[in-house]
Formats: sequence, structure tokens, C-alpha cells
Amino acid sequence: MDIKNLTCLEPLAMLNHNELEQLMSLGQEVSVPRGEVFIEEGAKAESFFILVSGRVEVKKKGNHIAELVAGVFLGEMALFNKNVRVSEVIALEPVILLEIPTEEFWLHVLNQDPLAVKVMESLGQIMTERLQQQDADLFSRIAENDPNLADLATMLEPVKRQLMADWALKYHAIGRPGKLAITATKPSGSAADLSVAYSPGVSEPCLAIEKDAECAYDYTAKGQLVGVITNGTAVLGLGNIGALAAKPVMEGKAILFKQFADIDAFDIEVDETDPDRFIDIVCAVAPTFGGINLEDIRAPECFYIERKCNERSDIPIFHDDQHGTAIIAGAALLNALELVDKRINEIRVVFSGAGAAGFSCAKYFISLGVLPENLILTDVKGVVYKGRGDNNYLDELAIDTELRTLAEAIEGADVFMGASVPGILKPDMLKSMKQDPIVFAMANPVPEIDYPVAMRTRADLIMGTGRSDYPNQINNVSAFPYIFRGALDIHATCINEEMKHAATKALAALAHEPISEECGFEDKKLSFGRKYIIPKPFDRRLLLNVSSAVACSAMDTGVARKKLDMDEYKQQLELILKLKG
Amino acid sequence: MDIKNLTCLEPLAMLNHNELEQLMSLGQEVSVPRGEVFIEEGAKAESFFILVSGRVEVKKKGNHIAELVAGVFLGEMALFNKNVRVSEVIALEPVILLEIPTEEFWLHVLNQDPLAVKVMESLGQIMTERLQQQDADLFSRIAENDPNLADLATMLEPVKRQLMADWALKYHAIGRPGKLAITATKPSGSAADLSVAYSPGVSEPCLAIEKDAECAYDYTAKGQLVGVITNGTAVLGLGNIGALAAKPVMEGKAILFKQFADIDAFDIEVDETDPDRFIDIVCAVAPTFGGINLEDIRAPECFYIERKCNERSDIPIFHDDQHGTAIIAGAALLNALELVDKRINEIRVVFSGAGAAGFSCAKYFISLGVLPENLILTDVKGVVYKGRGDNNYLDELAIDTELRTLAEAIEGADVFMGASVPGILKPDMLKSMKQDPIVFAMANPVPEIDYPVAMRTRADLIMGTGRSDYPNQINNVSAFPYIFRGALDIHATCINEEMKHAATKALAALAHEPISEECGFEDKKLSFGRKYIIPKPFDRRLLLNVSSAVACSAMDTGVARKKLDMDEYKQQLELILKLKG
Repeated sequence: MDIKNLTCLEPLAMLNHNELEQLMSLGQEVSVPRGEVFIEEGAKAESFFILVSGRVEVKKKGNHIAELVAGVFLGEMALFNKNVRVSEVIALEPVILLEIPTEEFWLHVLNQDPLAVKVMESLGQIMTERLQQQDADLFSRIAENDPNLADLATMLEPVKRQLMADWALKYHAIGRPGKLAITATKPSGSAADLSVAYSPGVSEPCLAIEKDAECAYDYTAKGQLVGVITNGTAVLGLGNIGALAAKPVMEGKAILFKQFADIDAFDIEVDETDPDRFIDIVCAVAPTFGGINLEDIRAPECFYIERKCNERSDIPIFHDDQHGTAIIAGAALLNALELVDKRINEIRVVFSGAGAAGFSCAKYFISLGVLPENLILTDVKGVVYKGRGDNNYLDELAIDTELRTLAEAIEGADVFMGASVPGILKPDMLKSMKQDPIVFAMANPVPEIDYPVAMRTRADLIMGTGRSDYPNQINNVSAFPYIFRGALDIHATCINEEMKHAATKALAALAHEPISEECGFEDKKLSFGRKYIIPKPFDRRLLLNVSSAVACSAMDTGVARKKLDMDEYKQQLELILKLKG
Repeated sequence: MDIKNLTCLEPLAMLNHNELEQLMSLGQEVSVPRGEVFIEEGAKAESFFILVSGRVEVKKKGNHIAELVAGVFLGEMALFNKNVRVSEVIALEPVILLEIPTEEFWLHVLNQDPLAVKVMESLGQIMTERLQQQDADLFSRIAENDPNLADLATMLEPVKRQLMADWALKYHAIGRPGKLAITATKPSGSAADLSVAYSPGVSEPCLAIEKDAECAYDYTAKGQLVGVITNGTAVLGLGNIGALAAKPVMEGKAILFKQFADIDAFDIEVDETDPDRFIDIVCAVAPTFGGINLEDIRAPECFYIERKCNERSDIPIFHDDQHGTAIIAGAALLNALELVDKRINEIRVVFSGAGAAGFSCAKYFISLGVLPENLILTDVKGVVYKGRGDNNYLDELAIDTELRTLAEAIEGADVFMGASVPGILKPDMLKSMKQDPIVFAMANPVPEIDYPVAMRTRADLIMGTGRSDYPNQINNVSAFPYIFRGALDIHATCINEEMKHAATKALAALAHEPISEECGFEDKKLSFGRKYIIPKPFDRRLLLNVSSAVACSAMDTGVARKKLDMDEYKQQLELILKLKG
């Protein structure tokens, strides 16, 4: 096969000339005449193909599924957990294929052959995107009231979940296990370099820092380094799985910091559940970092831990589970209220879920202007009322009321905020809410009420969820990277309430701005309104707007150790975006 | 100026077309006729030059220093701490220069302009290499008995030190402050990627690890991640400067791990000097890592801390200050003894320095076969003898002896091992040693006895130091990266004595091998003998030989949680070298 045939195929664009040659050597060229079936449904899958030239048809149980042209992978599910062909592929004209035996290819992946790893990662991406697109298509058609499709979606769900689970494990295992690596930011390849990076030259910055601690921001990575620290007591939806098992999540969080705000983050998994000892550890390692992101620590300890850590330390220590969602939901709330023309000090808000996220979000809504007497928390036991006898942190928000259940509390409410479990908000409850209800259903991936169901139930609804496939995604990734960026750049000693408010206001304001080239994505239909009350997580303007608002607020409230000229700072942030590409 | 004139200049080879254009825009073209002085000695330095074409002569106080041709930087000291021209430069023919104003250029560096940072780093490298070369030249000429040069060296020393100190600070500050950054090792740029790297896909590896802790090596970076942890109580030669001020050293150590063995390392500076609390912290964060390198912790606590940490943890926790030098010096000792045909159980060894390094090295020499009664420790108070009343860790190696001073102890000794202070071993003491004495003088940068002085004093001497500019450099960087590599790859639970011995033997054996292309450097004069008893730190074969020996020993002694086929493992190690380039 001529390598030129491969170079023009788009999915192979990530491979260079040498890699393409290697890929060719892994497989063999196959020519198939017009009309021949070369992948049989139900057959054992022992290879996958790259369609080099010609058109093919994909069929399932005799039904046309798709027509594909040169440049696609075929039968690649053989590399995931499928060893039986799930569809049939026929040549519509004479085609040329590169056929690669699965087992042999997989051996290369296991041996960390960089080419095989690259191809596998690309296949994983293609599969993930395809499944997500299918989901989105299905949901939008279900939303258009096609009950058969709902059945199909239900049927496909476990298959998809299994495929995704398989890929999630492979993604983490192939190539270099895990998701993080270290790089040197300075030349360090020669003896001369190392005599400056290490002994004897390194003693100069050490002495400078000993003399003036602020110099650590100049001579070390401290100023752009966040510690992502957990004890593994409340990991995602998985509960108390322990420090070690939490590591994949913490590495993932570190990647988010890097991806969205070019912040370097180390994960530290701490095998210590006693709150006071955990606090001692966090404070002891604090000199390492410019800020610490506490992650996945269970309530109620998390409140005490975060407060004590901040009292004892001179860098921001921020429990994102508490504040991340609150800050974004706060912005969504302000914008939704603007749209329905209600005032924050007049609305009635009902919370489902009173854990770290729910409780902190409730307090945050109050700090934004909701009257405490207009806010009702509910948890598994129902309404948190004065005299229920919780004798814990919940007492702070318990109110005097006769209401006892979510159904009772929600009647006539303006806002529902869910940080709890799938499906708890029934359509009847939604119906009982006041005009122009606002529903933020954050349980993920299945919200407190299904988006399509909710939209069918109330045409006057404004709704947000944690999902990327519905409008108004409320995702903490739109906040924490930028809040830390601003706090780090100004050498903040903490992230105070004013800085959080500044972030919320910047987020709310940004949703009013038209979608422009600066966003880094195109969606000309998007403009401020019921289906766009909060910026998209991939909006590149977030870095500029949120980070500078947070830094500015830190200066105004006296918690900044450094002064920044805001115009110059914005130029710096723009440079980050530019270098990110 | 035509950009083509710049593209062919070797020191600008690291710049691409755009960067060269940028560089040109920073400066201006200057033409100088033959015979004209364009840099005047003693003048104020406000710019630096790139010699684009033509030849120039450099003079100092009227004396010829050098003739230079196109492609060099001129007057670049203006960018370091020199604002006065230190020499004169004359055009020997019509020359073309690019003149760049220092102040403007430095502003670009401060604003982290990637081009300016790159040029600055390059200039720093050039200067460091030049100073090191000058040092080497001077020392070799001083060794040839030129007393005037010794005076010159003494005179130049403070100037050089100041220049290097200035560059060391700039090196750490320019561009991204510090030396470390994080990178993602997996695709993570799209929403689809993040749905696998983070929620929801990430829960799969979490659950797998919860079920079986060993899976953490498959799905996270743990297996190639080393924590570099200090409390800052004994940093380099600087003493107890505290956790934060130790950060530049710890980042440097992390860079060494990466550079030499492709191991990722995070630095953690722990603000805790109480040994037991420090142990608690190290053990609590241990799940994060595949191994922990304790660094720069003062004696005697370091012994207790390392022992306790290892008792409580299931990963190797290794205090490099204790073992690193010991392992290399051990290899040097074995080879030196071979050369002088002495048996290890018959030699008499005297140590100067009984801190972490000295004491541990003494114990290690005993484990290699030196008889305890033939080993004398000395410290600031003289010989450590039984009954001196130390009542601490020193008692373990105190012997029954009438000797009280280093001078007394060294008489008739076979080996001197220094881990102490410059100049303590006097020529007379050296003269009093037995035939074919072995001297390892590790005080750095100035050894216990000057290399040239020592070599002049005893022609039958075998000597090693910590310096790269003399033969037989005993540098712990030849051990720790590879010991950890082997221990990590085999999922070792500790680094036991046998593994250290295996490293020592592999190092000793490697020095017997001829220098080949595999080494990554050329020095055909080098072959096993009195001036080459230990491999060079940059020898690429160290990774292959030391890591596999350590891994093998871990399997043999039952501390490996994983089995490796040694041939396959060596292929893996070769892949690391290949990828390193």
C-alpha cells in the first residue's frame, strides 16, 4: 500500500509519516470487490479496518444504518469489550482496506508502543463522541414525543454503559498509567543546567526565600501550584471509598485545572479520616502550594475542616464541593430572576439535598439576597425544621414551619435547587410551583427531574442541570479553575465571600454577552434567554472575566499580597489563552 | 536585515522563523567598519549584540583575549549583573550586528514573552558553560604548577560567584517561575475526553481500585510517582532554613528524577519539625505515591523518621541523603580496592563527618564487608570512641580506641571518607596513610582536600570527589533515580539492604565496561582504572543496569508485588531511553 493513501485520511491526521508507516506494517492491505460483505454481523471480531478508498454500507439486521466513505475506522468495537460484530458492512464499490489484527494491535498497546496508544486513544475519542452524539440525538427525538425511542434508549443504556466503562478503564491504563506527568519548565538537560537548577546554584533562591517568604512566588512553582487534597470520604457519587481509590478523581481534577486555567495541580490522597489530624496535615503541607483545593470530603466534617484550615493557613484553602456549584448556580439564579422579573428578596426557594453542596449552596443563596425565612432545606427525612432535633450543622438553616415534606414545601415555591438524587422532583410537584418556576436539578448524570419531562410539564419553566447535553449546564468547572487563577495571581491569602460573589457576578454578566469568536466555539443561536442563562463551560472568555473579577475583589477586600494593574493582568490572561492555542 | 542572515547562526538554532522575526524587531541592524571599537571597556552597558557577519577581536586591558566570528552573542553580560563593559571589541573587518537594548529586552523577559525567555535561557546556558570551562581550564593549569594562575583564580572567584548567583535567581524566575509543571498524559481537550478523564467515566477506575488496591498501579500515576518530601531542617549546606525555603531544592530533585529516569516527582514541603508528627504526615500522604524520597532532614531525627515511615507504609520510603552517596561511594570503594588489590575485610577506614551522610555511609561500608573495629568515625569533636558520652546514634559505631583526633586516626589508614567540611584533610595526614590510599572527599564544591594538592602529595592515591570537573565524581544522581525506577517498576514495598547492594554492584560492574555509543557521550580515553572507578553521572547505561539489578533483587528478596521478566523489563527501560532521545 502506498503511504500517500493514508496521509490524506482525516482520522489519521494525528500520525506523522513514521507512525503511518508503522501502522501499515501492523496490518495488511485488503481489496474487496463491489457487493461483497467483509464484516458479517454476529461473526467473531478478530480485526479492525481503516477504509482507505471506496464507499461502504453499514447494515443492522438487514436495515440500512449508514453509508461511509474512505477515512473511517470500521469494526473498531473489536478493540473495546465487543468480540462479536454488531453490524454488517458491504462494499458499494471496489474498496481498499487496511486490516489490523486486534490481538496483535492490543499487545502493542499493552507494551506502551506510542503509536498503538495514540491510535487507541483516537478510537476511544471517536467512540465516546459517537455515543454522546447518539444520546443527544435520541434525547432530542424522545423530547419530540417518540415513545418507541424511549424504549430503545432504555435498551441501549446498559450496552453503552458497559462500552464506556471498558473505555474508561483502558483510557486510564494505556500508555503512561494515570493522567498526570511532570515536566521541567527550564532547560535541564546538561550538567551546566543542573548546576543552576540544583546544587550549587539552587542555594540562591533558597536563601532569598528564607529571607523573604514572598520570594517563593518568584523562584518556585508555588504561585501557580494548587494541591488537590482529599481523604476519600465522599468521592463523586461513590461515597467513602478511601484515599487511594479516590486518586483517579483527584488526577482528573488536576487535569481540569490545567486544561481550563493553565494551573499546575498535584493530587494528594491523605489516608486520615479524623478531621483534626487531617487539618494538621493539610496545614503542614500548605507551604508547597499557592492554594489548596479540598475535594470529596464528606459532610459535616468538611465545613469544620475548611474553616479551620483557612484560619491556620496563609493560602486559600477551598472546598470546591461546597462552593463550586453554589457560585455557578448563584449566577444562573441571578440571571433567571432577571428573565422572569422577580426580586431575590421576595422569592421562595426549596432545596433537595442538604449535604456539602446543598447546604453550602443554600447559605450562598442567602448571602446573595434570599431571605433565610424563604429558604427551605429538605433531605431524606423531609423538611429541615426548627425542632427536628438534628443537633448538627443543619440547625443553622432550620426554619420555623409546619411543612414536613418536599411536596408540601415546593407548593408555591419560585425556585427548586436539587443536589440530591435522580427523579425526586415529580411532575406534580413541579406543577404546584409558582409561575415561571426555576429548577436547578444537579443530580448527575440523572437529574432530580428529567429535562424533557420537566419541559413538557411546564412551558414557563427555566431549567438548568449538570448535563452538557441540555441547555444551561451548571458545572463547577466554569468556576473553580478561574477562581484559583485569580486568587493565585494576586497572591491571595484566602478566597473570601466577596471573591465568590465577584465570580458569580462575572459569570452572570458574561451570559449577557453575545457569542463571539473569542468564545472558542460557534453557536450563533445562543443568546441570553431562558435556554442560555449561564456561560458554556468551554467558553474561553471565562478565564479573562472570572479570574480578573476575583483578583480585583481580592485587592479591594485586602486579602491580596500583590498589586496588579488590571489591564496588564488581562493581557497576561490573554497570553495564557494564546499559548493554550 | 534579511532574516536569512540570522537563520544560519548556530546559537539561534533554537528559534523558529517567527521568533527570529520577533528578535529582529526587538533590535536594530548596525554596520561597523573595519578597525572600529564598538564595545568599549569600562563603558556603560546598555545593549547586547548578535554578530551577524564578519570577524571581531576581544581585548582586555589591551591584551588579546579572543577572535570571534559570526554567530556569537557579544556584550551579553549586560543582561546579568554587569552594567559596565568588561572588555573591548573591535571589528577586524566590516561587520554587521543586531543590537538589542538591554532594558527593553529585559522588560520582555519580565512579561514572560516566550521568545525573550528562550533567548535569556540560552544566554544563561552559554554563560554557565563558559564559566565552568574557564574553571576547568584554570584548575588544570594550576595543577600544572602555575602559581600566578592560582592568584587569578582566587581573584576571579567572587566575580564568578556573583554572576552565577545572579543567573541562578534569574533562571528560577523567568518564564514560568520555578522548575516544575504538570502535563496531562491523556487526551483531555474535549468534553468527550473529560467525560472519561473525570465524571462520569472516572468512577470505573475508582471502583476497581477500591476492590483491589494493586489496580492503582494500572489506572493512576502512582506507579511512577515519587514524593520528594522535606521539612527543611538540613537543606544542602544551608542548614535549617525551613520548609518553604527548601522548595527550590525539592523542585530541583524532582527534575533530576525526571531527567535521569523519567520518573514523575512532586515536591512536598512539610512545615513540621516534630519527628513523630512528621512521620504521621508522610505515612498519611503515602497512598498518593509509588515511593517517597525523604530529603534534607537533619540528623539524628532522619534515622528514626525513615525507619518508622518504612515500618508503617507499604511503599519504599528512602532518605537519599543517607543512602545515595553511600551506595555510589560503596561502588567506588569496591573498584578502588580491586585496583590496589586490598581486601575489604582487612582495610582500615576513617570517616570525617558523622551526620546523616557520613554515619549512614559508615554503616553501609560495614554492610559491604569493612570490619566495625577497623572503621573510625570522626566529627567536630574528634574520634567517636566508646565512652565519649555521646548517648545518641553515634554510640552504635563508637569503638574502643586510644585515638582522639583525625590526624591520629588517619595514620596508617587505607581509606579516608569525607562527608564534612572543606580542607580538613591536610597533606601531612594524607602522607601518613598506608600505601595506595583511597580518598573520597565529598564536601562540595570545595572538598576535604583539594584534588590537585592531594594528587601532588601522593602519586599512589586513588581519589574521588563530588565535583564534575575532577575524575571519579561520586554523585548521588548516579543512584537514586535508578534505584527508584527499579523499585517502582516492580511495585516494591521497600528498598532493602539487598537492593542497595545490588545497585552498588551494578555501578561497580558498569565502570569495568568500555565506553560505547550507548553511554550517550564520547570519551575514548576513559577506561577502568585509577581515574575511572565509577560511571559518569550522564552515562545512559546506568538506567538499564542499575534499575534492572534493583528490580531483580527486590524479586529475589520477596519485596516485589509484581513479577517482571528481566529481558522484557530491559526492553522497557530501553524504550525510556529511546523516548528521552
